[in-house]
Amino acid sequence: MSLTKIASKTAAGNFFEDFRLGQIIDHATPRTITVGDAAVYQGIFGSRFAVQSSDAFAQAIGYPHSPVDDLLVFHIVFGKTVPDISLNAIANLGYAAGRWLAPVYPGDTISARSEVIGLKENSSRKTGIVYVRSAGCKPDGSKVMEYVRWVMVRKRDEAAPAPAEHVPQLPEAVPASALGDAGLRINVAAYDFTLAGSPCRFADYAAGESIDHVDGVTVEEAEHALATRLYQNTARVHFNQYAESKGRFGRRLIYGGHVISLARALSFNGLANAFHVAAINGGRHVSPLFAGATVFAWSQVLAKAELPGRDDVGALRLRTVATKDHPCADFPLKSGSADHPAVLLDLDYWVLIPR
Amino acid sequence: MSLTKIASKTAAGNFFEDFRLGQIIDHATPRTITVGDAAVYQGIFGSRFAVQSSDAFAQAIGYPHSPVDDLLVFHIVFGKTVPDISLNAIANLGYAAGRWLAPVYPGDTISARSEVIGLKENSSRKTGIVYVRSAGCKPDGSKVMEYVRWVMVRKRDEAAPAPAEHVPQLPEAVPASALGDAGLRINVAAYDFTLAGSPCRFADYAAGESIDHVDGVTVEEAEHALATRLYQNTARVHFNQYAESKGRFGRRLIYGGHVISLARALSFNGLANAFHVAAINGGRHVSPLFAGATVFAWSQVLAKAELPGRDDVGALRLRTVATKDHPCADFPLKSGSADHPAVLLDLDYWVLIPR
Amino acid sequence: MSLTKIASKTAAGNFFEDFRLGQIIDHATPRTITVGDAAVYQGIFGSRFAVQSSDAFAQAIGYPHSPVDDLLVFHIVFGKTVPDISLNAIANLGYAAGRWLAPVYPGDTISARSEVIGLKENSSRKTGIVYVRSAGCKPDGSKVMEYVRWVMVRKRDEAAPAPAEHVPQLPEAVPASALGDAGLRINVAAYDFTLAGSPCRFADYAAGESIDHVDGVTVEEAEHALATRLYQNTARVHFNQYAESKGRFGRRLIYGGHVISLARALSFNGLANAFHVAAINGGRHVSPLFAGATVFAWSQVLAKAELPGRDDVGALRLRTVATKDHPCADFPLKSGSADHPAVLLDLDYWVLIPR
Repeated sequence: MSLTKIASKTAAGNFFEDFRLGQIIDHATPRTITVGDAAVYQGIFGSRFAVQSSDAFAQAIGYPHSPVDDLLVFHIVFGKTVPDISLNAIANLGYAAGRWLAPVYPGDTISARSEVIGLKENSSRKTGIVYVRSAGCKPDGSKVMEYVRWVMVRKRDEAAPAPAEHVPQLPEAVPASALGDAGLRINVAAYDFTLAGSPCRFADYAAGESIDHVDGVTVEEAEHALATRLYQNTARVHFNQYAESKGRFGRRLIYGGHVISLARALSFNGLANAFHVAAINGGRHVSPLFAGATVFAWSQVLAKAELPGRDDVGALRLRTVATKDHPCADFPLKSGSADHPAVLLDLDYWVLIPR
Repeated sequence: MSLTKIASKTAAGNFFEDFRLGQIIDHATPRTITVGDAAVYQGIFGSRFAVQSSDAFAQAIGYPHSPVDDLLVFHIVFGKTVPDISLNAIANLGYAAGRWLAPVYPGDTISARSEVIGLKENSSRKTGIVYVRSAGCKPDGSKVMEYVRWVMVRKRDEAAPAPAEHVPQLPEAVPASALGDAGLRINVAAYDFTLAGSPCRFADYAAGESIDHVDGVTVEEAEHALATRLYQNTARVHFNQYAESKGRFGRRLIYGGHVISLARALSFNGLANAFHVAAINGGRHVSPLFAGATVFAWSQVLAKAELPGRDDVGALRLRTVATKDHPCADFPLKSGSADHPAVLLDLDYWVLIPR
Repeated sequence: MSLTKIASKTAAGNFFEDFRLGQIIDHATPRTITVGDAAVYQGIFGSRFAVQSSDAFAQAIGYPHSPVDDLLVFHIVFGKTVPDISLNAIANLGYAAGRWLAPVYPGDTISARSEVIGLKENSSRKTGIVYVRSAGCKPDGSKVMEYVRWVMVRKRDEAAPAPAEHVPQLPEAVPASALGDAGLRINVAAYDFTLAGSPCRFADYAAGESIDHVDGVTVEEAEHALATRLYQNTARVHFNQYAESKGRFGRRLIYGGHVISLARALSFNGLANAFHVAAINGGRHVSPLFAGATVFAWSQVLAKAELPGRDDVGALRLRTVATKDHPCADFPLKSGSADHPAVLLDLDYWVLIPR
């Protein structure tokens, strides 16, 4: 048998020196999100926010029917960027300027596009930092969400020349005036706080207040792999135990976004009416998660904001911290000047909540 | 950082002394059931009843299309009651008077409401028994199913005064005259017994007859957790290995309803035409199930009944017994005067089957 | 308690002597395939072919919307045949003449019918080989796919007389003229190769070329069991750890079709535009797969063919080899004259790809 391998047919992903400032990348595999995806996501995370759970509830307050969970949209957009942006990444360093721009409903098709907005080679010359603004778009080109992330990416060839260094200016937080595009104006009079699970509205939360979300959920290998494949995320560290058994941790690493969704679902207990994630200001995957661990979470209200021209909902800026094998009654975050060893995630984001 | 915990924002669940006779509880998070939920449920249980599997089959006999599996509806209703009724329960003691009252189709939204119909403090004064009648309702308030269950619930404060004792009168079984509300009158002439998987009709079953359902299915942690989160059931014992590792069993306890659905799916082999669960007369979770065990089941026909005014279907009253790691060719139930150690579930219910 | 077992109510499956040449078997449990099934399948396999992923992409090239994954249709048809054909099988020996005949869309109901086209008792007289041509059909009787498989089936009674031996003539491969019935004529001008993930078209592949699909995916027990129950496949070896712990391998055997779907999903990396599986020429499950192993795959282009009257797509005849715990950069197949010990699957099939 004569075997001829044409290596270029398979995607090896981009290396640091492959990126160019201003480069636009249209990512592969558009995805129609369905009630099926919503159900698989439901089974994996167990979320209970009423707007996303009940068409009748959503319709009562003004939606045509339940929108797709905001984080499911994020994960699907993120997943599409992986083969081009982070297949050769060593670390996902940060997020900024994430915004949801239009509601997504079952049946909508989403594709992803990224722009390279920053490049910085590391002093080792073995790696560099790539900053991209990625957006999820409908077929008409309109954006449903966007976010910036930066990742440390390997160089294919250490001797390759470095591109001109450019580190983008990124906002410390999304301003309140930029929130709410994906949240329809709702009819608060028709919002049933009993069915939603809590009487607490915007006015009931105070800046500085912290909330232990109490519950914990253990993660199994099959669960995170199901989720991450649902998003068509191809990052090898999540799926390939053969390779990972020889790697840094000896086992599959759980997608960082899985922790975000677990923390969001846990946060229902304390934030039941925070029905819409409107923006991500920043976030850090503080430590890796592996199957078998139990995830807990707590949140602090960093700030409150009214939305210009909106009296139906207000915004809470939250810092949600997720931990592994450590209930959060003590609000773990720092251990002296270092991160508390149980902390997995430190996420800064905005949610909308009825006034 | 100044941390202020407002404990009341998180749900601690009700304790025995929080319940009042006649109290009505509207449970949180209505749920639109979709074909996505049906598919996840299918993947977890592998049921093969034709009416629920095939729109074409269902339409031929008179349904608009396939109804949602009866037990999926039950689990979703049950799940909603957990945060209010059984978050502080020690044991789920029994079921009675369960009835399906209207078919549920994909797209229907179901919420849950419970009435406290009985209260009885235990002699220890540490716990009490709470009896609730819970119903799943459509947005127009019409009921799709209802059932009574009683649970042993902790007291928050042992010194709290006990409510007046009231133990409700519960029927030993749902009468045949109360069956069939959720089963449309079907066109038996168009019911294809070959496609349904068995020639056996109502007339082919005899009271007293026992049927070994032969097959066994092993349960994984990811499977029962997926199912139970799909139902938005929040009982902590099913999800939190960190807490359960310190608990009574050292591990997560599988939701008792999971065993009911496994037994129902296994019962296809022997009861393929028993397409509709019409009522639950009573049931007992005899012993706990943990991941890794293999579940088997057998059934006895306790009684047969005609339905008033119905010549299309008849009712079989079944006692289905599920076991762990024990095939059921010997119909295990008792071991002397005690329960057979392999028995997980002893369920008494009515099914409808074509005549 | 008086127990009467009527053994005939439960399906014991057919034994070799139960089959008759020319026998037609209508298999139980028709199945409406939904977007929910597609989502569960997506979560299990993570496929990225654009036509099946995006309604908008599918519509652009001429489909009404995304068709159901070809292999999901196959598995559902196959699953239905198990209770009648292979419940008492020792081995699934081969496939031939598999063809997809019409696209299947969410909402379509599929049932399965088989014809016994060959019988041959083995010299041991303990087993025999049964050849069946199975088809998936819509309610109007039109076929959506068909295939031949042959299985070694136990005899119930070694002394039972053997049927007349008949071994069917089977094609070495499906001819190119018989391909394409389930692939609509597509508008290649509207096929977006960027969104599809690769620029490689029909002309870019050469007969003899081999492609390492690079990625690997580890299989968990919950994943393969979810998939196989989704298909309503009842083969006991996949589900029953209690029985299998006493069996040949000591553990549950993963459905061979699971490996086919894993290899197909992995093959996206190298064959991103091969959007439609049109035929299966033959295939061999070379060795068993168990949970915990990581599956890799590589493909060789065995031949290329134009389709009569079609200038939109061409056909690639592929040999896709899947392995366990062995990356495929060395294109493993044979080890001397024997199978390479890592090889799980050796599948010969046709795919369609834009010209």
